[in-house]
Amino acid sequence: MTTEKTNAIGEFELIRWIQEQVGNCDHLTRGIGDDCAVQPQVQGQELLTSTDLLIEDIHFKRSWTSMFDLGRKSVAVNLSDIAAMGGVPQSLFLGIGRSKQIGPEELKDFIRGFLYEARQNDVVLAGGDTCGSPGPLIISVTVQGSIAATTAVQRRGARSGDCIYVSGTLGDSALALQQLQEGKIPAAALAQRLHTPKARVTLGCSLSELKLATAMLDISDGLIADLNHLLTASGVGAELDLAAIPLSEDFRLALNDDPGLIDLALAGGEDYELLFSSPRPDLAGHPELEPGVVKIGTICAGSGMKIQQADGRSYRCRRQGFDHFVQE
Amino acid sequence: MTTEKTNAIGEFELIRWIQEQVGNCDHLTRGIGDDCAVQPQVQGQELLTSTDLLIEDIHFKRSWTSMFDLGRKSVAVNLSDIAAMGGVPQSLFLGIGRSKQIGPEELKDFIRGFLYEARQNDVVLAGGDTCGSPGPLIISVTVQGSIAATTAVQRRGARSGDCIYVSGTLGDSALALQQLQEGKIPAAALAQRLHTPKARVTLGCSLSELKLATAMLDISDGLIADLNHLLTASGVGAELDLAAIPLSEDFRLALNDDPGLIDLALAGGEDYELLFSSPRPDLAGHPELEPGVVKIGTICAGSGMKIQQADGRSYRCRRQGFDHFVQE
Repeated sequence: MTTEKTNAIGEFELIRWIQEQVGNCDHLTRGIGDDCAVQPQVQGQELLTSTDLLIEDIHFKRSWTSMFDLGRKSVAVNLSDIAAMGGVPQSLFLGIGRSKQIGPEELKDFIRGFLYEARQNDVVLAGGDTCGSPGPLIISVTVQGSIAATTAVQRRGARSGDCIYVSGTLGDSALALQQLQEGKIPAAALAQRLHTPKARVTLGCSLSELKLATAMLDISDGLIADLNHLLTASGVGAELDLAAIPLSEDFRLALNDDPGLIDLALAGGEDYELLFSSPRPDLAGHPELEPGVVKIGTICAGSGMKIQQADGRSYRCRRQGFDHFVQE
Repeated sequence: MTTEKTNAIGEFELIRWIQEQVGNCDHLTRGIGDDCAVQPQVQGQELLTSTDLLIEDIHFKRSWTSMFDLGRKSVAVNLSDIAAMGGVPQSLFLGIGRSKQIGPEELKDFIRGFLYEARQNDVVLAGGDTCGSPGPLIISVTVQGSIAATTAVQRRGARSGDCIYVSGTLGDSALALQQLQEGKIPAAALAQRLHTPKARVTLGCSLSELKLATAMLDISDGLIADLNHLLTASGVGAELDLAAIPLSEDFRLALNDDPGLIDLALAGGEDYELLFSSPRPDLAGHPELEPGVVKIGTICAGSGMKIQQADGRSYRCRRQGFDHFVQE
């Protein structure tokens, strides 16, 4: 077998291989292998849909991640959008634009990671598209989920007086990225947050089912940028308590050496934690929610955001949320 | 205003502009501007979903098409997958990876074309994602449609004895592409088939509603390749009548000069016509179908495909369907 042959994998061969890995799925009338996926609809439910592009050297560097982890992350960041509405993810659609550098085994590793993360979340790969790319590796993922009608938590429901909550810890992913950019090797727990983030699906569902959140989104652009989206959509302002921002042990260790790193927790991005508002002041430690929800501030009338330090002075973040879109 | 400023358009600015262009839509609870689009579900219906990637220099060359037409085509090729199941398209999701060469006005022209074609088909842009691309312009489109439960026409229902039909004319788009590649200017009607194909939504719906088709798909890879998909899925073979392949006037003109061009009608691709099987021998000119449906052959037992010439000899196509996936 020549090297050329070993590297070649045709579209239909790949699709057949993926079909075998995926197996059958109860909630689909028809999955991979036709023009469309076909899925029965259920009255009283609403369909949630979100789509994401992941492009090499914009969203990821292949030298920093394994293809398996990249597959996992491609699923997780997409599911996070379903979690952000409080829904249950069901079906994924995957587009791959394959660059010349990606051999068939690397491609399969990517798919294996993709399907692993999908299975962890009880979601099925229902369709897709494959082609070559003349440049970077291109991944496009669309996710569909469902939610009981009228219970989806949008960005625009926050009201003055609501408490602001966040799940997990912030800044870990951004710190890992910064360390990689500086040629350092991040601590394992930090690297994990960057390469294999988890979508907060269970927490999101609890919040929508129990009707505890007035507005919600997931933090992908950074706390400040995403909170601003929520505030703008809701027509309100916010006061944040800097000391309340939840940080991991590894992050605190790094922060001891460089206090400026706090800006990574405020504006680093790719946290994929849930940020939400609620009239209830008692959700931290609430028995019906996943642990790790923390109150970090209050919604107020007006607009804009004030970040208060422990000494009462207001804090000004020197970092702006990253805009993947504007070309330098 | 500096050139730099004129060329800059941020993600959120662009999304706001798109939101204004899109307006409201009755069938969505929530469209652009949140983590997910939210769409109520209707019992007795099935959800159809398909996704496509369009990548610069793989699927299109910017020097050969306007951005407006590229926007139109991005919609049409995706809707064609819904037509191929007999469904009604409803919502589109658009991912854009913007290369540095694309200025804001070009981007807006693309969106204008996208929304124009969407409106022509009564479909709404319900969400998306935007980012930069370090290489080619990247377009990812996902479409959702609906169809009455159990009426979706799959690829796998063709039975021995069924007639094989095709809509429209074949080879026009491939001929236009070949002429462009040779530095020639294609006739307007041919260029139109390449740059602004139409999805056969009305015909597809009629076929599913009237239960006239046993198997169906749209021709994107070329008649032979796509018929092979249908035959393989159905476990049958086919005999095609070469003289019955429908050709346009412009195509026939070119064919007079070069009889070998017939292979473009057989295997050129990007026709976006419907190819279907039916036990009914009388669908050409059927009063309840769009005009232009032609019988081109018969499904038979076994496997494989025979193409019969007028003199009874079998024809062998020298061209293979293009596989966008395998790298040269």
